[in-house]
Amino acid sequence: MLIALFPGDGIGPEIVAQAKRVLDALAIDGLTYEEGLVGGAAYKAAGHPLPPETLALAKRADAILFGAVGDPDCDSLERHLRPEQAILGLRKELGLFSNLRPAKVFPELAGESALKPEVAGAIDLLIVRETNGDVYFGEKGFRTTADGLREGYDIMSYNETEVRRIAHSGFQAARARRGKLCSVDKANVLETSQLWRDVVIEVAAEYPDVALSHMYVDNAAMQLVRDPGQFDVIVTGNLFGDILSDQASMCVGSIGMLASATLNGSGQGLYEPIHGSAPDIAGQGKANPLATVLSAAMMLRYSLGLHAQADRIEAAVEKALADGARSPDLGGGMSTVEMGDAVLAAL
Amino acid sequence: MLIALFPGDGIGPEIVAQAKRVLDALAIDGLTYEEGLVGGAAYKAAGHPLPPETLALAKRADAILFGAVGDPDCDSLERHLRPEQAILGLRKELGLFSNLRPAKVFPELAGESALKPEVAGAIDLLIVRETNGDVYFGEKGFRTTADGLREGYDIMSYNETEVRRIAHSGFQAARARRGKLCSVDKANVLETSQLWRDVVIEVAAEYPDVALSHMYVDNAAMQLVRDPGQFDVIVTGNLFGDILSDQASMCVGSIGMLASATLNGSGQGLYEPIHGSAPDIAGQGKANPLATVLSAAMMLRYSLGLHAQADRIEAAVEKALADGARSPDLGGGMSTVEMGDAVLAAL
Ligand SMILES: CC(C)[C@H](C(=O)O)[C@@H](O)C(=O)O
Ligand SMILES: CC(C)[C@H](C(=O)O)[C@@H](O)C(=O)O
Repeated sequence: MLIALFPGDGIGPEIVAQAKRVLDALAIDGLTYEEGLVGGAAYKAAGHPLPPETLALAKRADAILFGAVGDPDCDSLERHLRPEQAILGLRKELGLFSNLRPAKVFPELAGESALKPEVAGAIDLLIVRETNGDVYFGEKGFRTTADGLREGYDIMSYNETEVRRIAHSGFQAARARRGKLCSVDKANVLETSQLWRDVVIEVAAEYPDVALSHMYVDNAAMQLVRDPGQFDVIVTGNLFGDILSDQASMCVGSIGMLASATLNGSGQGLYEPIHGSAPDIAGQGKANPLATVLSAAMMLRYSLGLHAQADRIEAAVEKALADGARSPDLGGGMSTVEMGDAVLAAL
Repeated sequence: MLIALFPGDGIGPEIVAQAKRVLDALAIDGLTYEEGLVGGAAYKAAGHPLPPETLALAKRADAILFGAVGDPDCDSLERHLRPEQAILGLRKELGLFSNLRPAKVFPELAGESALKPEVAGAIDLLIVRETNGDVYFGEKGFRTTADGLREGYDIMSYNETEVRRIAHSGFQAARARRGKLCSVDKANVLETSQLWRDVVIEVAAEYPDVALSHMYVDNAAMQLVRDPGQFDVIVTGNLFGDILSDQASMCVGSIGMLASATLNGSGQGLYEPIHGSAPDIAGQGKANPLATVLSAAMMLRYSLGLHAQADRIEAAVEKALADGARSPDLGGGMSTVEMGDAVLAAL
């Protein structure tokens, strides 16, 4: 089985290196690795954030372990050359439509959250975000209005097939957890959301065991602060999912700890920490690699079916934390490599 | 000067009644009032959430004091008949484009927030939300794709004139406060946001005394949890403003306390609490009227230029709180009328 390693920009190479050490330590038979260039690093080396060789490797691979993209040097490039296009392009080209972002407080780290410990401590939710459609991928551009004004526009849309498949992801995830699904939209204003809501309700008929509710996105943003413990699984579109999943991760308090998976319909997946490339601390050995290590665990579970090994990694991370492993973002002084050492020791 | 009173649905009539009592107690010369039907109440009485007489009254008035709209009985009506269309229609028809939502912790209530007291206590920000454009008012509808699929779509757009005027609102507000403006967009994905950012940067040249920064909306949703005290004024579009302002209000912890103003270019304004119609407690005398009372104070300040009277109301609310006035949402047992009594006593 082939794993594509895409370290990317900023702290990406450092954190992916630690995840690779942990994978190596498991000595899993038949795993091979190939590395590819993405993001600003790829633009600088090959003139494009997602070069054809990288895309070809991604398509060939069983799974992708991704670091982060984003590089201030590239901020003034044309949109299609910016580092972010690597992740958007991979999602689209591989049909990676189901982005799973679990947010759960690690008991040892409950104090890190800006939320009161009793509020943060109750967080155990999963955001299922659609990542192939919505206003991200509709027609967009600049035009001149009838009055000669510059105007920017982006078309938001979802069709029933797109909504149906992500709704299934949401219901299935809820079924495997506590059986509660909250669909988030803005159906009081948007027709895209109305279609979303209609289709989610249709799909619900196949999941009588899951309790479905609907919430407007503005209310969801409030409820994630007021009482995030009320949520089990949230399913939502690309744009609202972008906002709410980042908000939820910050409610947990330790964004350096949170992993994500983005899956297509054939078991292929891209696995990445939810934090960014953190150019300010790149190359200094200060980055917390645990979100990437936990992303590797998700990869073993979702794309490779290696549940026992995934459990082992997760248990090792918990143990390392319990033993006091703390990078600077967690209020400690351990380096990126020392954090990797701590996980290896706990494995 | 004419004030239009639009109580609306749910708890609207109860809370507007208390704000009216407070206004009456100030015995301001030359103020007259006319009441109009909006929302579900208007639909039930007149077949439309924003009947022509209501709209005419709104246009004639110097200011509108608005309760809340939203009625579960109306959930299955066609979109253009739903209660929410009253507020959207008023914003659009009167050109009310600049929605000001201050979020500040009342020292007595700092403990109410789900955020740690030291985090919540530092909140003193103003969200300036554009409310005449964006995906709210673009072309929208249902269509069938080439493959015969149902699709919902909504066009997001901003032109330079729309962005320029709200940018001025943001810069002017920042100048009158602590001189910091953060413009929130999603320019790494949306062309609408790229135009937004370009124009905000152009307008910045006229405000060398204001420190401008830019933030992506996903990051803003994180920062509002992590460290909301970092913000002075946030300026953003209609959709992001909807989400972030509700999130910010919940960070403060007492959504029953927060007022808002929505202004057009001629000093006319609509003033409303940021909370909704709360149908579950309607008619029970449990609603906290203070957000509406504080909205009346904003009305005196922004549309009527009566700064001293606005200050008096705000001081009275602070005093009532300091004296222990607490409705159920603030952990107390006082009724809507008793909360009004407390403000009157403190006036
Ligand atoms: C980098 C950016 C385009 C991306 C997104 O908006 O999807 C990121 O914020 C994410 O959430 O993965
Ligand atoms: C009722 C709804 C249409 C409205 C909006 O989305 O603008 C409300 O949420 C608000 O923020 O005033």
